[in-house]
Amino acid sequence: MNKKTEDIVNGMMDVDFFSQWLGIEVINVAPGTCLLKMTVRKDMLNGFGIAHGGIAYSLADSALAFASNGYGQISLSIETSIAHFNKITEGEVILAEAMEIHRSSKIAKYSVEIFSLAGEKKALFSGTVYRTQKAHELKK
Amino acid sequence: MNKKTEDIVNGMMDVDFFSQWLGIEVINVAPGTCLLKMTVRKDMLNGFGIAHGGIAYSLADSALAFASNGYGQISLSIETSIAHFNKITEGEVILAEAMEIHRSSKIAKYSVEIFSLAGEKKALFSGTVYRTQKAHELKK
Amino acid sequence: MNKKTEDIVNGMMDVDFFSQWLGIEVINVAPGTCLLKMTVRKDMLNGFGIAHGGIAYSLADSALAFASNGYGQISLSIETSIAHFNKITEGEVILAEAMEIHRSSKIAKYSVEIFSLAGEKKALFSGTVYRTQKAHELKK
Amino acid sequence: MNKKTEDIVNGMMDVDFFSQWLGIEVINVAPGTCLLKMTVRKDMLNGFGIAHGGIAYSLADSALAFASNGYGQISLSIETSIAHFNKITEGEVILAEAMEIHRSSKIAKYSVEIFSLAGEKKALFSGTVYRTQKAHELKK
Repeated sequence: MNKKTEDIVNGMMDVDFFSQWLGIEVINVAPGTCLLKMTVRKDMLNGFGIAHGGIAYSLADSALAFASNGYGQISLSIETSIAHFNKITEGEVILAEAMEIHRSSKIAKYSVEIFSLAGEKKALFSGTVYRTQKAHELKK
Repeated sequence: MNKKTEDIVNGMMDVDFFSQWLGIEVINVAPGTCLLKMTVRKDMLNGFGIAHGGIAYSLADSALAFASNGYGQISLSIETSIAHFNKITEGEVILAEAMEIHRSSKIAKYSVEIFSLAGEKKALFSGTVYRTQKAHELKK
Repeated sequence: MNKKTEDIVNGMMDVDFFSQWLGIEVINVAPGTCLLKMTVRKDMLNGFGIAHGGIAYSLADSALAFASNGYGQISLSIETSIAHFNKITEGEVILAEAMEIHRSSKIAKYSVEIFSLAGEKKALFSGTVYRTQKAHELKK
Repeated sequence: MNKKTEDIVNGMMDVDFFSQWLGIEVINVAPGTCLLKMTVRKDMLNGFGIAHGGIAYSLADSALAFASNGYGQISLSIETSIAHFNKITEGEVILAEAMEIHRSSKIAKYSVEIFSLAGEKKALFSGTVYRTQKAHELKK
């Protein structure tokens, strides 16, 4: 396990009130990768009675933030996209796994797969970040 | 005003519990277009103390759903993307305006601009939908 | 090998004058997948002296067309994107491998990796197609 | 007219052999914007007998390069996307107009509309660039 990356992500999660509202649980995190989990609740549904598109996006966007910031330098989202494949229903447990596609000194691209516990593909997210020179400051 | 489109969107909003949690207000809606408004709260912030990327996305995704479903036939999101330009802070009022870029019998593409009351560009969302042959059923 | 898919792709290549100009060679093709190869020439360079972004895109777009049309029904590109990671230089041999991410009756999504013979990642393309009900007619 | 921007774009076009092959004509260019024109030839068609998707993409990608590099600092494409709306046929004259959506010191986003002389929307391209600190060197 990578202690510094975990400290960064825990520090972010502590004040990430929206990820907390979503009930996001960090299963695993390391520089450039991350696995998150959450359960869809009734207050996350849209007008069609299934999970709002923003729920899968938000989970994936948090995964992008944790995976890319895990290196220690502050990384900011430039451009993201998501395709929704299968509906996500109330009570379903969904996971998001972030994988690094490419990383240069300034720019990095990640792919985040969203799937159910049963392994059904729910959505595919893609995100590009700008890697600043500014380091995360960790609280003692 | 378009009575049928309003009825469809009101019917969707009635059961869209996530848009309700976000505090989304429908300012205007017509077939192919829509203007929404919401205020960013503390429980919508991310690990950097600004609005989570999922907040602007969710607002825009609701705008996409209302604008595209306003024609009467059920329309489903295929592919969406968003670029975040300026940070959105706690207490800010943000608006999302959906505009139709192109529409064929099966596929339609929308652009959604997210901006503050002061007119600052916050994000640009782009969404493509598949237009089913199934009509929205309105409650009496 | 899948004879019908090969016939469809060969039939398309026969009149695909731009893929011919690019010097695209079909290494392998099957329903939902495809591997293409080409060599970058001087007349494919841009103002920076490296391969124009349109070259990798065009190779990937042909891969998308062959992989998605290989099932036998005419499939049309709705939305595509590409991220360029490393420069491609004159004389380099590049390959494009299309993989199916998701497929429903009407919509399918593909990922196309562009890489050099040495295995260096050059670009990542993503493409979504609309699957019509119209079948490819094969010449006798 | 902006002399420096024109010199940069002319300098790029002089060695941009692929844009030359496409027959691209620079109608207008200024920092952050650009209007290009070309005519579709038989050797630009795909397996469906219409312009290959790579043709509209390549025209738009050149427009992105000229518009973003027109400020004087070298700008590199990070992420681009294109949606094709209407088929482009042999002999058609198409134009591409690049517009700046947002620009910060490091990142800028452009939208490029591709349309026919008759004003029919053909495609919509979106491109994000990284703005390096390196300046274009102009030949005396």
